[in-house]
Amino acid sequence: MVGRSGRRPGNQDTREAILAAARSAFAERGMDGATIRVIAAGAGVDPALVHHYFGTKDQLFLAAMRAPIDPLTIIPLVLAGGLDGIGERLVRMLLSVWDSPAGEAAVAVLRSAFSNDDIAAMMREFIVNRILKQVVKGLGLDPVEGLLRASLVGSQIAGVITFRYIIKVEPMASAPVETLVARIGPTIETYLKG
Amino acid sequence: MVGRSGRRPGNQDTREAILAAARSAFAERGMDGATIRVIAAGAGVDPALVHHYFGTKDQLFLAAMRAPIDPLTIIPLVLAGGLDGIGERLVRMLLSVWDSPAGEAAVAVLRSAFSNDDIAAMMREFIVNRILKQVVKGLGLDPVEGLLRASLVGSQIAGVITFRYIIKVEPMASAPVETLVARIGPTIETYLKG
Repeated sequence: MVGRSGRRPGNQDTREAILAAARSAFAERGMDGATIRVIAAGAGVDPALVHHYFGTKDQLFLAAMRAPIDPLTIIPLVLAGGLDGIGERLVRMLLSVWDSPAGEAAVAVLRSAFSNDDIAAMMREFIVNRILKQVVKGLGLDPVEGLLRASLVGSQIAGVITFRYIIKVEPMASAPVETLVARIGPTIETYLKG
Repeated sequence: MVGRSGRRPGNQDTREAILAAARSAFAERGMDGATIRVIAAGAGVDPALVHHYFGTKDQLFLAAMRAPIDPLTIIPLVLAGGLDGIGERLVRMLLSVWDSPAGEAAVAVLRSAFSNDDIAAMMREFIVNRILKQVVKGLGLDPVEGLLRASLVGSQIAGVITFRYIIKVEPMASAPVETLVARIGPTIETYLKG
C-alpha cells in the first residue's frame, strides 16, 4: 500500500494523458467540438476525473496550452477601470506575467503554435472567442467594429511578445516594463477608442 | 553533351547547396562572421560562383531566408517621403508584398524562425542591423532613442504579420489593405515621432 501515502506517481501520468488527449481533441474538433467526454475517452479515464483535475473545459484548454494566466480572470480586471488608461494597465499586466517563470513555459508553446497548423488553429480560436470577443463585450463595443479594434490591440500585443520573448530583438527584449507601458499603452487605448 | 544544351539541372542543385551552406553559416557565425569564403567552402564551390549566383552577402542572406523583398531597396523608398504619412506608406507597401505569392514563401520561413533557435538568431540580427538601424540612420534619429522607436514599429509590424498571415486571426486576416493602412499607419508614425 505504499502508493497510497503521499503523492501517487500515477496521478502525474494521468494528468499528462488527459492534457495530451485534450490537445489532440481541441486541434481536431475545435473548442466547441471537443467535449470533456471525448477527451476523457481519448485518455482512457472517466469524465469525472477530468473535471476533478482540471475544472471546466476552458480551464482544461488553458492547462493544455500551458497558458501563464487565465484571460477570463484577467480581462475583467483590466476592463474594470474603463477605457482611460486601459492600455497602460494591459501592457503592465501582460509583461509582468510574461516576464515570470510561467511566461517562459508559455513561450515554448507559442513557438510551436507558429510552426504547427493544429496548434495555430487552437490558438486562433482561443484568441478570437476567448479573448477578443470578451473584450468587445466587456467594453460594450459594436460587435463588428469592436472586433476589428480588439484585433488591432491583439496584433500589437502579439508583436511585443514576439520581439521581447521569442525573437528577442533589442532594445525591446530588455527594456524596462514601464518604458514599454508608457510607449505602447497609449497605442492600445487609441486602437480601442477608434 | 546533352547536359550542355538548355538549363543544366546541376545549377539548381548547386544553388540549393549554397543556400543550405549559407543558412548554416549565418546561424553559426552571424551575419558578419559568415564570409562568402566560408559559405563557398561549406557548399564545396568556388567563392566566385557564390557571387555569380547571388551577388552580395546581403543578397545571399535574403535569398537564404526567402525574403519576399530586399529591405535595403524598400526602406529608402518609404523613408524618402519624410515622417509625415510614413506609417501609411509602410503598411501599404508591406501588406502588398506579404499578400503576394512571394509573401507566402516567406511565411513558411517565418514559422520556422519561431521554433528554431538558429533561424531566430539570424532573424534577430537581420531585423536589428539590416532593418531597424537603417531606419534610424535614414531618419537621422538619435541612435539609442531611435532604436527603441524603430523596435516599437517593428513589433507592430511583426504582430500584424503574425495575426494576418501566420495565426490568421479574423477580422485582421481578411481585412482590406486600406482598412489596416488607416488604422495602423498613424500608430507607426506616432512611434517614430516619439
